[in-house]
Amino acid sequence: MSTSFWHPQAMMSTVKNNEIVIDRGEGSYLWTEDGTKLLDATAALWYANIGHGRPEIATAVAKQMQKLEHYQTFDKYATRPTLELCDRIVDLAPFDDGAKVLLGSGGSDAIETAAKLARRYFTATGRPDKRIIISRQQAYHGLHGHGTSLGWLPANREGYGELDPAVLRASATDWHDVEKTIMNTGPELIAAFFCEPVIGTGGVIFPGAEYLAEVRELCRKHDILFVSDEVITGFGRTGKWFASERFDLQPDMMTFAKGVTSGYLPLGGLVVAPHVAEPFFADEGSLSFRHGVTYSGHAAVCAAALANIDVLERENLVQRVASLETVLADALAPLAELDGVIDVRAGVGLLGAVELRDAQLANKVEAHGLGHGVLLRKIVGGNVIQISPPFIITEDEIQLIADTIAAALGE
Amino acid sequence: MSTSFWHPQAMMSTVKNNEIVIDRGEGSYLWTEDGTKLLDATAALWYANIGHGRPEIATAVAKQMQKLEHYQTFDKYATRPTLELCDRIVDLAPFDDGAKVLLGSGGSDAIETAAKLARRYFTATGRPDKRIIISRQQAYHGLHGHGTSLGWLPANREGYGELDPAVLRASATDWHDVEKTIMNTGPELIAAFFCEPVIGTGGVIFPGAEYLAEVRELCRKHDILFVSDEVITGFGRTGKWFASERFDLQPDMMTFAKGVTSGYLPLGGLVVAPHVAEPFFADEGSLSFRHGVTYSGHAAVCAAALANIDVLERENLVQRVASLETVLADALAPLAELDGVIDVRAGVGLLGAVELRDAQLANKVEAHGLGHGVLLRKIVGGNVIQISPPFIITEDEIQLIADTIAAALGE
Ligand SMILES: Cc1ncc(COP(=O)(O)O)c(C=O)c1O
Ligand SMILES: Cc1ncc(COP(=O)(O)O)c(C=O)c1O
Repeated sequence: MSTSFWHPQAMMSTVKNNEIVIDRGEGSYLWTEDGTKLLDATAALWYANIGHGRPEIATAVAKQMQKLEHYQTFDKYATRPTLELCDRIVDLAPFDDGAKVLLGSGGSDAIETAAKLARRYFTATGRPDKRIIISRQQAYHGLHGHGTSLGWLPANREGYGELDPAVLRASATDWHDVEKTIMNTGPELIAAFFCEPVIGTGGVIFPGAEYLAEVRELCRKHDILFVSDEVITGFGRTGKWFASERFDLQPDMMTFAKGVTSGYLPLGGLVVAPHVAEPFFADEGSLSFRHGVTYSGHAAVCAAALANIDVLERENLVQRVASLETVLADALAPLAELDGVIDVRAGVGLLGAVELRDAQLANKVEAHGLGHGVLLRKIVGGNVIQISPPFIITEDEIQLIADTIAAALGE
Repeated sequence: MSTSFWHPQAMMSTVKNNEIVIDRGEGSYLWTEDGTKLLDATAALWYANIGHGRPEIATAVAKQMQKLEHYQTFDKYATRPTLELCDRIVDLAPFDDGAKVLLGSGGSDAIETAAKLARRYFTATGRPDKRIIISRQQAYHGLHGHGTSLGWLPANREGYGELDPAVLRASATDWHDVEKTIMNTGPELIAAFFCEPVIGTGGVIFPGAEYLAEVRELCRKHDILFVSDEVITGFGRTGKWFASERFDLQPDMMTFAKGVTSGYLPLGGLVVAPHVAEPFFADEGSLSFRHGVTYSGHAAVCAAALANIDVLERENLVQRVASLETVLADALAPLAELDGVIDVRAGVGLLGAVELRDAQLANKVEAHGLGHGVLLRKIVGGNVIQISPPFIITEDEIQLIADTIAAALGE
C-alpha cells in the first residue's frame, strides 16, 4: 500500500508502506481494517473525550447540515448554532460577563488568533512596544506560523530559518525563571505569556499550583496578558470544565479546541476576557480586529460542539474525570518501579505519562500494545508514553492500560 | 440582540446589535431567521459551489461519523476516506504521478503548510539561504501567521509590529516587475512565489495568460517554487478542475480549500509535486516534515469532500461553469456604463466583480440587494462588489444579479 497522503508529523520513508488504517470506532474502542480491536488509551490526539462513533453527534450534524451547512460569519452575518455555542462556552468558562469568543477550525488556529490579538490589543491601546510573547520550555502550541515559533521542541522549529524573533522561552516549572525572563527583558516590551496549565505534548507535565499562581500574579503585576492554552485541558480533561477554573487562573485569553467537539468536527477558538475585548466592542468605537477564517463559526461544526457539550453534561462526564483521577494515578504508580521507567506522571484528571529510558523501549511498548489490544502513543522525543483515555473509560480498562505497559516492559 | 461571538473581519461596535442570522439554505438560496429569501450571489465566501443544504452530503457525513468520526493520522495512522480523498485529488489535479497531498482544515492552514514546506525543502536539499517568499500586490493568502505576512491589504497587517521580514511583494499584473524583484533580491535567496491565478479577495483580478506564463517561467529558470493558491479557483470555479490546468501552470505546490467540500465542512490542503516531495519520501531517507494539525485528514470531513466531488462529477458542474462564463461576463458588461462604476471584471469562470466609486456606494448596493432578494458582498477597500455564485445558478438568476446591481445604482 503506497499513499498519496503525506501524513502529519511522519517520516514518510518508513510510513509509506506501513500505514495502519483505522476503520471503525465505538466508545473507547477502535477497529483496524484487518479487524484488530484496540482500546484507545489516548483518546486519539487527546480529543475523543466522549468516545467514538456516537450516533447523537452524527444526527445533530446531519440535521444542521441539511438545513444549512454554513453561511459565513464575516462582518454582520451569523448562524444560530454559532451564536448559541459562543453563549454556551461563555457560560461554562471561568470568565466574567462580557467575555467574547473567536472561532476557527482547530487549536493551531486559536493560537494564531491569540498571538495576533495580544499584539493588536496593545497597539490599539497605545502600547505598541509590548510585542514579545513568552512561551515555555516543553510547550506545544500547534504548528501554524506563530505556533511554530512559540513551541519548544527544537525539531519542530528547524529548517525554516529564523522564526518570530519576538518570542522568548522561560522555564515550564520554575516561576523564578519566568520572573527573571520578564525582568531581564523589560515588562514594558512583553505582550503575553502563553501557558498550558498542564503541558501535554511536551510530556504531560503539571508545573504545580504554586507555579501557576505565581506566573499568573507576575503577569497581572506587569500588565502581561495571561493566555491559558486549554486545547488539551479544556472541556473536562482535568476534572473541571477548564483547568483555568481548577487552578483559578482568571486568564485574559483562553484557547480551546479538541474537547469542544471531542474531535467529531474541526473546531477551535479563543475566549477573551471583557477588558481585552472592550476596546473592540465599545459603543461608537472604530477599532476592528481584522482576522478570521472562512470557517469561523461553521454552522454544522458548531452543531457538533453543542451536541458534544450536551453529552458531557447529560452523562456527567466532567465529574467522571474527577472521580477517575486517582484511579489512573494509582494504576500507573507501580510502573515507576519497573526497569526502564524514568518517571510516571499522573494526578491531574485523565492525563498520564510514562517516561522511558529511550525511544527504542517506547517503540517496544507501543508495538506490544498494538499486539495486545491497547493503542498507545509516544510523545516528545519518542520516549514518553501518553495516556489520556476517553472520559467514558472504565476502571478496569484503566487497569488494563497499566497492565499492558507493565507486561511490555517485563518482556 | 447582543452577542458573545466575536465575528471575523468585523467592526464589532456596529455589528454587535445588527447581526443578520442566516437560518436555512437550499441550492442557490438562503433564508434569514425573519424569513427573507436571498439569492446567494457569492456562494458565501466563494465556497458554496454545489449550493446549500444538499442532503447527499449530510448523509455521507453522518454515515462516516457513525462508523468513525476520525482517528488521528499522525505518524503511520490513517482512515480510509483520508487516503481515498488524497488519491482522488491527485487524479484530478494537474500533477505528475507521485504527487502528494497534505491536509488541514482550511485555506489558511494550507498556506502555512506551503510557506513552511518551501523553506524546509530548500534547507533539506542544502540551500538554506533560499528563504524569501515573493507574494503579490492585491494578494490574499489567509490570516494565520505566514498568511498575514504574505497578504497585501495593509489594514490586515497593521497592529502586530514587524511581520516576517523574508516576504516581498511584487506586481500582480506586470511580470517585468516580478522579474526585477527577483533579480534585485537575488534568486539564490528566494524560495517561493505565491500566486493566485485569479486574485479573489483582492478584487477579482485576472493578470492575463501572459503574466502567468512569464512568472511561471521565471520561477522555473531561477529554481523558485511556484505555489498556485487555488483556495478560490480550485475544484471548478474557472471552468476547469483547477486554474493551474487551464493556464498550464505546472505548479510545484498547489493549495486548495473552499471548493473541495463546497464549505460543507472545514478542509484545506496542499498538493506537492513529486520532485518536491521526493527528498521526504525517498526509500531509506530520514527526512521528515514535522508539521501537521490534529484534524489533518479528518475522516468525516474527507467523506464530505468525496461526496462533494461526486456531485460535481455527476452533475457536470465544472463544465457548467465553463458554459456560464460568458453568460456572467455578458450580464455584467453593461454595468460598466453606469454612473459610479469604475470597472467591471469577469471572463474567467464564475468570478466577477464590479468596482464602484467608493465604499458608500457599495454599501448602498449591498443594502439594496438585501432588500430585493440578492445577497452580495463587498471586498478589498469595501468598494468592490463580489460576484461568485454557486455553480448551479441559472442564466436567469445571473441576469437577476446584474439587474439588481443596476437598479441599486440607478436609484
Ligand atoms: C496545547 C496545544 N495547543 C495547540 C495545539 C494545536 O492544535 P491543533 O493540532 O488542533 O492545531 C495542540 C495540539 O495538540 C495542543 O496540544
Ligand atoms: C486565495 C486564498 N487563499 C487563502 C485563503 C484562506 O482560506 P481560509 O479562510 O479557509 O483560511 C483564502 C480565503 O478566502 C483565499 O481566498
